[in-house]
Amino acid sequence: MNVWDIELKLKPFDLGAIMKASGNRPPARVMAKGLYMMKDLQRNAEFWKMQINSPNEFMEWIRKYNTRDASKLIIASKDKAIPLARELWTQLWSRGQKVFEDADLKEVLKKIGVTNEDQLLKESKDPKIAQELENNTQEAIEQGAFGAPWIVVHKDGEDHYFFGSDRFPLIAQLIGKPFSVPLPSKI
Amino acid sequence: MNVWDIELKLKPFDLGAIMKASGNRPPARVMAKGLYMMKDLQRNAEFWKMQINSPNEFMEWIRKYNTRDASKLIIASKDKAIPLARELWTQLWSRGQKVFEDADLKEVLKKIGVTNEDQLLKESKDPKIAQELENNTQEAIEQGAFGAPWIVVHKDGEDHYFFGSDRFPLIAQLIGKPFSVPLPSKI
Repeated sequence: MNVWDIELKLKPFDLGAIMKASGNRPPARVMAKGLYMMKDLQRNAEFWKMQINSPNEFMEWIRKYNTRDASKLIIASKDKAIPLARELWTQLWSRGQKVFEDADLKEVLKKIGVTNEDQLLKESKDPKIAQELENNTQEAIEQGAFGAPWIVVHKDGEDHYFFGSDRFPLIAQLIGKPFSVPLPSKI
Repeated sequence: MNVWDIELKLKPFDLGAIMKASGNRPPARVMAKGLYMMKDLQRNAEFWKMQINSPNEFMEWIRKYNTRDASKLIIASKDKAIPLARELWTQLWSRGQKVFEDADLKEVLKKIGVTNEDQLLKESKDPKIAQELENNTQEAIEQGAFGAPWIVVHKDGEDHYFFGSDRFPLIAQLIGKPFSVPLPSKI
């Protein structure tokens, strides 16, 4: 048993709305920080033994698209939420491909073995799903979120909030389990 | 031998000038981030088994004072630079006391056993020391610094730049030494 053996639950939120509500700015708006982050991302990929290949069109995509539809699809996919989220991540960050439009999302659904991809996409456009995304976003803002990843650890009836992929050593200490590198499953 | 067994060299710089040159803003300017950072600091103190007691007057002090004089004193103190820097840190972050004015600095010098504190303070006001602080600042800006701590790791004739106190696991991997918690010496 280590820090990775915990039950995961995804609550996709609207990152743009969270940045706006908190008054935060994307770190890459400061050029030196953007350059550093690219290097840091590569170092972290080596550290975690993950394949990270940022899309070449990243700066163009970030202006043109958002991941609201992908987030809504994760909500609609219910028990497939975690494999779908992993595959969406892999599609964008490891294969450097889009995850924004219906055709992109259908391709990812097929990769995880979903056969009713049209039905699921249709369900993800239901206003109830948009409302759930909005509720998740409001909940995260009330918790104090100002960016992603925003991690909520439930322990003994209490909620503990963490920001950043670099806080797992602290989470491991909180839940009293060893921190280990690399990840048990390769994303 | 682990990541902490490395030769340290301090090059104090002017953090305000680095923030300005890079266009960065202090993170606590975003309120949600400021609140989170206070919590994160406390968690890190527990993780590293360090005594951190932020001064109650921190927000007032940050507007009124800066650590340029303390930085110049570190430069002037030559072979005492590391014990002095540690004691300055302890005075501000563990005892919650000022390190900005001559009286504050003299008190810290006495704590590390310096007996010629007036002489050393006088030397720290030499324009050559101010120039060295300025040179360090320019060097860091050219390396891509946008905040502190900014850590330069020299390895096999190459320089590697790291930002943040949370990147020691990556530094350990770079220099091929194990990362260990807590710190060998209690600050």
